[in-house]
Amino acid sequence: MSRTLAIEPLTAAPFAPFGAVIEADIARSFLINGGRTRRFDALALADPGEDADAALSVFRGAPWNAGEDGPIRIAMLERHPLGSQPFVPMERHDWLIVVAERPDPAACRAFRARGDQGIQLARGVWHHPLLVLQPVQDFLVVDRKGPGNNLDEHHFAPGEEVLLLPG
Amino acid sequence: MSRTLAIEPLTAAPFAPFGAVIEADIARSFLINGGRTRRFDALALADPGEDADAALSVFRGAPWNAGEDGPIRIAMLERHPLGSQPFVPMERHDWLIVVAERPDPAACRAFRARGDQGIQLARGVWHHPLLVLQPVQDFLVVDRKGPGNNLDEHHFAPGEEVLLLPG
Repeated sequence: MSRTLAIEPLTAAPFAPFGAVIEADIARSFLINGGRTRRFDALALADPGEDADAALSVFRGAPWNAGEDGPIRIAMLERHPLGSQPFVPMERHDWLIVVAERPDPAACRAFRARGDQGIQLARGVWHHPLLVLQPVQDFLVVDRKGPGNNLDEHHFAPGEEVLLLPG
Repeated sequence: MSRTLAIEPLTAAPFAPFGAVIEADIARSFLINGGRTRRFDALALADPGEDADAALSVFRGAPWNAGEDGPIRIAMLERHPLGSQPFVPMERHDWLIVVAERPDPAACRAFRARGDQGIQLARGVWHHPLLVLQPVQDFLVVDRKGPGNNLDEHHFAPGEEVLLLPG
């Protein structure tokens, strides 16, 4: 029987094994531009890896369960062994993140991000592809553009899928 | 008498001397994640310069005319000689960009960006600090974190200011 994964609110401490939370953190901020702009500084450093550029792309996500009301079925994980990958919402809607310390259904953890929270997945972190809750939601991504294979995929065995019920 | 600057809609061709427009451009897109995500690929490459990281920060902008209805007074320009600087809205509101090929009021050009359009200022491009139209608007910025002076400012002489009337 498929296991239903608890969904935790996204905060920095529990997410730390997987990467950084990119959000307006007053403790890391200061005023610039004559007081007109508050800079929340260096919330993450791009890590595109060796001999590569950090490319800015837009990812337009659609729901994994194709707009149905049923659970979201997590049947695989992927990782980018050569570089980090941030996702920052360009529209203020909650979204979901599934990550794991190893490619194993039992290791999966799920986080619900607010629409003003992005993340940077550290290099090599296992994760599910983008999980949005709206019919469509755009994200800015800053990831490696360079040589080499930067994608590993792991598909779970039949019956090993985990389920998400975002409610 | 101060000159009022015409505001052009932001499109890639007129902005090209200053940098890149970061927007969902179907011609540069392909489907990934089993068809659930459309990737608008490599709309800009981060250029943090030598011996530096590309840091992800949030800039929270407030209006330059402090919420008044009057014109926005452009009295200075700045540039970052060592690295590029993108601004990507994290909320879908129009915003303004003032850029110039030289630090001269007569060279200033103004663009109105939609809320789904970001830009990357190329290294060393003269620009006005962030110009928002909402009481507050957040942007993701990916810029240089490294040694050296990465800020030049040029203040216009009294009476040389240019005005923006965003309407």
